[in-house]
Amino acid sequence: MNKSSLFINTCIVTPDSLGNVQSMENAHIAVDQGLISYVGTSLDEARRSLSDPSSSEMFECRNKLIMPTFANGHSHLPMTLLKNSADDLPLEDWLFNHILPREDHLTPDDIYYGSLLGIAEMIQSGIGATADMYFMAENTVRAASESGFRINLCHDGKYKKDDRWFTDEKGFSDFVKELSSFDSEMIRLSLMVHSIYLYPEYMYPQLADMAKALDTSIHVHISETRVEVENAIRNYGRTPVEALRDFGILDRPCIGAHGVHLSDSDRIILAEKNVTIAHNPSSNMKLASGLCDVRSLIEAGVNVSLGTDGSASNNNLNMFQEIRLASFIAKIVCNDASSLNAKEIINMSTRAGYRSMGFMRSGTLEVGMNADLQVIDLLNPSIWPVGQPESAIVYSATPSCVESVMVAGKFLKYKNDMTTIDLDKIRHETMARSKRIACV
Amino acid sequence: MNKSSLFINTCIVTPDSLGNVQSMENAHIAVDQGLISYVGTSLDEARRSLSDPSSSEMFECRNKLIMPTFANGHSHLPMTLLKNSADDLPLEDWLFNHILPREDHLTPDDIYYGSLLGIAEMIQSGIGATADMYFMAENTVRAASESGFRINLCHDGKYKKDDRWFTDEKGFSDFVKELSSFDSEMIRLSLMVHSIYLYPEYMYPQLADMAKALDTSIHVHISETRVEVENAIRNYGRTPVEALRDFGILDRPCIGAHGVHLSDSDRIILAEKNVTIAHNPSSNMKLASGLCDVRSLIEAGVNVSLGTDGSASNNNLNMFQEIRLASFIAKIVCNDASSLNAKEIINMSTRAGYRSMGFMRSGTLEVGMNADLQVIDLLNPSIWPVGQPESAIVYSATPSCVESVMVAGKFLKYKNDMTTIDLDKIRHETMARSKRIACV
Repeated sequence: MNKSSLFINTCIVTPDSLGNVQSMENAHIAVDQGLISYVGTSLDEARRSLSDPSSSEMFECRNKLIMPTFANGHSHLPMTLLKNSADDLPLEDWLFNHILPREDHLTPDDIYYGSLLGIAEMIQSGIGATADMYFMAENTVRAASESGFRINLCHDGKYKKDDRWFTDEKGFSDFVKELSSFDSEMIRLSLMVHSIYLYPEYMYPQLADMAKALDTSIHVHISETRVEVENAIRNYGRTPVEALRDFGILDRPCIGAHGVHLSDSDRIILAEKNVTIAHNPSSNMKLASGLCDVRSLIEAGVNVSLGTDGSASNNNLNMFQEIRLASFIAKIVCNDASSLNAKEIINMSTRAGYRSMGFMRSGTLEVGMNADLQVIDLLNPSIWPVGQPESAIVYSATPSCVESVMVAGKFLKYKNDMTTIDLDKIRHETMARSKRIACV
Repeated sequence: MNKSSLFINTCIVTPDSLGNVQSMENAHIAVDQGLISYVGTSLDEARRSLSDPSSSEMFECRNKLIMPTFANGHSHLPMTLLKNSADDLPLEDWLFNHILPREDHLTPDDIYYGSLLGIAEMIQSGIGATADMYFMAENTVRAASESGFRINLCHDGKYKKDDRWFTDEKGFSDFVKELSSFDSEMIRLSLMVHSIYLYPEYMYPQLADMAKALDTSIHVHISETRVEVENAIRNYGRTPVEALRDFGILDRPCIGAHGVHLSDSDRIILAEKNVTIAHNPSSNMKLASGLCDVRSLIEAGVNVSLGTDGSASNNNLNMFQEIRLASFIAKIVCNDASSLNAKEIINMSTRAGYRSMGFMRSGTLEVGMNADLQVIDLLNPSIWPVGQPESAIVYSATPSCVESVMVAGKFLKYKNDMTTIDLDKIRHETMARSKRIACV
């Protein structure tokens, strides 16, 4: 069992249960058995909330700020191995001539070490969970579990035989059983439906049925590029959102990555179906996909999270870059510098992201919630002078400000050191592997 | 005199004298008396280039990358004191209700300490020089000189009497004299011409004449917002670029900040007049000014540098954020993921920036050039695996990767420690000052 912790004299910034971001000065947070047992300004009450106050560790947090860990709404962890290897290329050239051929050569251990490196980079920028989409996910499960990191990951529930695709109920249900030995508050499963453009039409209703039968959510790329939308209209006479809805995909809890090219009626469908759009600012700009209109999504009632996408199209897993850029993009799209303010961004990058993954007990600092929090050092020169704490988080902070990261009451980064991941070992392993793959 | 230095076994990335970016593995750099005396792969030749090899300090640079320091093309250093104090506001509200009233309360010591903090943040992200525009610049001169930092700064050559502005030849020429005691390779002067919209029409030709008489360059905001262009057309019947040209402003060496809203003929004028456009990616997005079309500027033959702008509209002085975002913006504007590739960005952020400030002997790593360089730690997790070094610099690196910064052969940051600036003291001073100003 985790020891209890008491963070005292800190500034707290967190969304409340409705998503409104609040801040509190000179406050305390108590953590007991992995859960938050107190948040407020009374140190006596904080102590009394602990089951065994005498064994708790106390952290003086003057000149620090505590907020929920970030939830990364969309990632491809093992793509760390492909980082900085194919940049400044048009999307089709990038994907079909550089990324896909290299992915064919990835081994299970590549996936494991690539995932560990990605998780390490995420933890260092204050991320406590990610919604990951990749293959051979059992290796990513191992990496996440060893790291103490929450994850919603994908399984690819199909196989190819004689040039025809079939759903793989047996393989999928075996994987569901395998995951049942893990805490569902730490590891959750989604069915991978890559996109509306990669599978034959008959597969989509079958995949929707399979996700329903095994009660999993679905993770899918939606309307990332203009070409994707044009092709869907040509092939299906409908937008990607309409087609996915008609095939039953959106009837499951659904993470839809990107949502760059949407119509007004697409946004209404996404809101009605409770689909989360995972907005990926860096990736959308770097691949010239376009600028997602987050303001219109929020006004239509769509839950919007923020994601890094994979390291081959970003090339970082740094949530501070994404939150800053998400706000910038909204300001440009709306031609309004007040659009998507710092508080809205903080809610998107924490509570909204955790909700999209089904981690309903993470993402806010409230009594009874999981102790998923990050401690930000306000003396770090990049956020000095602090000014408004929400502004400092969104517009000034960098990963080097993140002093400690706690997930489920356990430190994954403690006073700038990684506690569950051996960085030197990963560096050694990923160096050799990335060089091998770059030569493909 | 500075000791000589020998950096061995490193990866070097630098523009050449024409701006083409080259990289070299297993290379060495020798620095002698503030200048680069050797760049290449022969250690013997590197040693022989030193006037006294026995007294030189040798740095093993395996797993490191050396590139020129960045040149920050446009900044307002003392605005560090206004950081994170007025965000998510429309530009007019931000400027007239929050920034300008606070600036009225800045003291000479505020300017000094605010400048020191800004210079510290710049050095930490690998910047070795900045083109700064602010008032009471004698205090910024002090800060830059004590820090060993190159700067091109502004003097405001006018005064107001009975509601009318006059040029201040005496004050300006006194300031020019004051600066003559400094090395012109370290500190250079520009006349501040804020913009086409802040002064009465009669002032512009007079300011142009004054800059000509005292042989200084000019630093001016050009076409930052759509409103600025519309007003210029209404008031002068011309675009800001045309008006500044007709008033003689562009006849001086000129740094034009922003250039977001330009016509094709504006770009031709800028190229003919050898004006540098300092592109400020973060500021332009955060204030919803728009997206600068850098590709068209370069195709028209305009020199383009990259800048952070001030801390109140960014809110960082972090060149890694700007280089990444500059590339992203070009990709979106051109709808082409191959636009403004990593090599072009490196040239803009180094050589092109130094040229704009008149520091013609900085910005490339070549024999005879100033030893202005940064050492990047390739083992830092944010750029691991490195892949293509140019991609790693532009798309992955963060200030925490910058291990050392050398300007004119002297370390300003050495193995992650600041050598010329007392960060604790500045923190103490700027905390009190920024709080006082926030209460205005």
